[in-house]
Amino acid sequence: MSDLANKAIRFCRDLALCTEEPGRTTRTFLSPPMHEVHRVLGGWMRELGMEVSVDAAGNLRGVRAGNPAGRLVIASHLDTVPDAGAFDGILGVVLGVALVEANAEALAGWGPTIEVIGFSEEEGVRFGIPFIGSRSVAGTLDDSILTPPVLDAIRAFGSDPAGLPAARLSPETVACIEFHIEQGPVLESLGFPLGVVDSIAGQSRLNLTFRGRANHAGTTPMPLRRDALAAASEWIGFVEQRACDEPGLVATVGSIAAEPNATNVIPGLTRVSLDVRHKCDTTRHASAAEMLAAAQRICDRRGISLEWETRLDQPAVALDAHLRELLSRSVQACGYPAHRMTSGAGHDAMILAPHVPTAMLFLRSPGGISHHPDESVVAGDIEAAIQVGLEFIRNV
Amino acid sequence: MSDLANKAIRFCRDLALCTEEPGRTTRTFLSPPMHEVHRVLGGWMRELGMEVSVDAAGNLRGVRAGNPAGRLVIASHLDTVPDAGAFDGILGVVLGVALVEANAEALAGWGPTIEVIGFSEEEGVRFGIPFIGSRSVAGTLDDSILTPPVLDAIRAFGSDPAGLPAARLSPETVACIEFHIEQGPVLESLGFPLGVVDSIAGQSRLNLTFRGRANHAGTTPMPLRRDALAAASEWIGFVEQRACDEPGLVATVGSIAAEPNATNVIPGLTRVSLDVRHKCDTTRHASAAEMLAAAQRICDRRGISLEWETRLDQPAVALDAHLRELLSRSVQACGYPAHRMTSGAGHDAMILAPHVPTAMLFLRSPGGISHHPDESVVAGDIEAAIQVGLEFIRNV
Repeated sequence: MSDLANKAIRFCRDLALCTEEPGRTTRTFLSPPMHEVHRVLGGWMRELGMEVSVDAAGNLRGVRAGNPAGRLVIASHLDTVPDAGAFDGILGVVLGVALVEANAEALAGWGPTIEVIGFSEEEGVRFGIPFIGSRSVAGTLDDSILTPPVLDAIRAFGSDPAGLPAARLSPETVACIEFHIEQGPVLESLGFPLGVVDSIAGQSRLNLTFRGRANHAGTTPMPLRRDALAAASEWIGFVEQRACDEPGLVATVGSIAAEPNATNVIPGLTRVSLDVRHKCDTTRHASAAEMLAAAQRICDRRGISLEWETRLDQPAVALDAHLRELLSRSVQACGYPAHRMTSGAGHDAMILAPHVPTAMLFLRSPGGISHHPDESVVAGDIEAAIQVGLEFIRNV
Repeated sequence: MSDLANKAIRFCRDLALCTEEPGRTTRTFLSPPMHEVHRVLGGWMRELGMEVSVDAAGNLRGVRAGNPAGRLVIASHLDTVPDAGAFDGILGVVLGVALVEANAEALAGWGPTIEVIGFSEEEGVRFGIPFIGSRSVAGTLDDSILTPPVLDAIRAFGSDPAGLPAARLSPETVACIEFHIEQGPVLESLGFPLGVVDSIAGQSRLNLTFRGRANHAGTTPMPLRRDALAAASEWIGFVEQRACDEPGLVATVGSIAAEPNATNVIPGLTRVSLDVRHKCDTTRHASAAEMLAAAQRICDRRGISLEWETRLDQPAVALDAHLRELLSRSVQACGYPAHRMTSGAGHDAMILAPHVPTAMLFLRSPGGISHHPDESVVAGDIEAAIQVGLEFIRNV
């Protein structure tokens, strides 16, 4: 098992060299290096007797025949952000193949049919549209996603968009599971190798503009100022406190810009972003509304005008109740604490969950680091995930 | 007097058309349109019997002979910021000539000799070095100012740097006065046309860097964050409150930049500027030190590192005690409230003050607007300034 964990890490590290940009890992939807990833992973799949294909959306699919009555899909994505680490997404695909290898003998007889899918797109980097891979498998592609540039990219990769309907999940599929690094610090802070994901948090994204009055920093007394940055700063403090007060809520002001942004001029305008996430949509909406109300109060008191727009309101997705219980029991059966958690990040699992019972297992992220070349994973945690995966397959 | 006030405004508006950039007023040190300004203002001076010259630093100088025992200098600057208004600086020169016109009869006999100087440079736009005009007259130019590009510009304008020593103030000079728009909202908020400047505030300028840890906005719980923007925002609130608590103190965070500045990433780094001004250097230094100490406390509590550097520490300059009393009495004698104030902005008067008794009179700035095409001045306030100027000349 330890050998297999190290093999999985070696595969991920080697595949990180399949990149559009020499010296760093950047592999977007249907970019040329994706062919090499398919060749390498497909080769491993074939060694294990799997039937390998690439569907019209560019997803790598490998099927290991077993019990025909039910198919288990193990899936994650093969694309990356720019200057990525070696594990985000692809580890979940590599683990799928590793589980087939670990389970090889058992499967031939009584085990379920296992399909490992490496999605072509999750990060939304190339066309600003995320989840193209899992949406094609879920059957939720539409014209807003299949724009002419996306269709051209599919053809340039050597596929035919006419085949997209055939990319949908096999009707035999009874369960999906996604393995993924946590991309956060929670499991590490608790000292746990694995986490069972109960739901994917919903997200609100807003832009706010505080519009005051630019003025001379030397000649304008404090009481006569309408400082847009001071107003935004007061509000950022409220947002942080409000999020700290609500269990499970995260709220982030990630981007800020002031105008004219000069040392000796009082900022007349400040733009900020707001990102709010929670597993409960009602809580998230109420929190975002309170944050907006606070911004309005702060602006009213300061003689500043406020504009805002909602850019995203994405509901939370609960994963399958039965499968997450099964996964929890599998984690415990292998001797690990079954920590239940909400994923603050979006994942392919949330695209699949409305269509097929879906579970998700997080692996600890050392330092909470992700979307960065320093992203890593502990071999012992991969071993644990393989053990848990085998237990899950046995019981699914 | 009302005619003369309107004439002064007309001159300023006409001279605003002397610009490097068609459609907006931009007139930097020794730029070609400065020749036209010299021609127009020099022409008016000659009409009044003044002896007109341009010194080696490109300052326009007009002398109206009077009592040879003492010379009064009336001076301000003729250059502008980019996209400027029509009154910042140049109004003080135009008012000098207007005062000579208003005072013409009286001067010939018993009045003082009056020298009107239009400085070539105050804003520091062309070479990043402010006050070149007044420094040449004060005799404080040195090699750090007279760089090869500055010397080249002097030659290109038609002057000879060898003549710079002769630009110094005449030894007969007993007093200087600068008329200038306030460039702030104080006089307007009080309903006063004029303000007597007691001192020019000292300035501290600092840069601060808050260095936390960038992380995923969805997967990092609030207690595990080291959010550099949240830290900077808390500190901006402290700076504002501290300045409000200290009479006469102004403190401004005018510029801010966060990294990576993405909606869904916790800011790992935030850079801000700090500008602190007060008439008392001890108060200013103590306030800036308190602000830095607060930044350090905030960073320590949040596990964030702080770096800072002082970019400017410019002492306050008190104007001449005798002259400012005389100016106050002149304001009162003309029937106006003699509001005493600190200038939060730097002015040529602060360059002259260490070398010759110097006074400064502010004219109300409608809306507090300056360094902007909407900059304006009220004709009645110019009338008041001319009355006060005449009274000042009679008593100096």
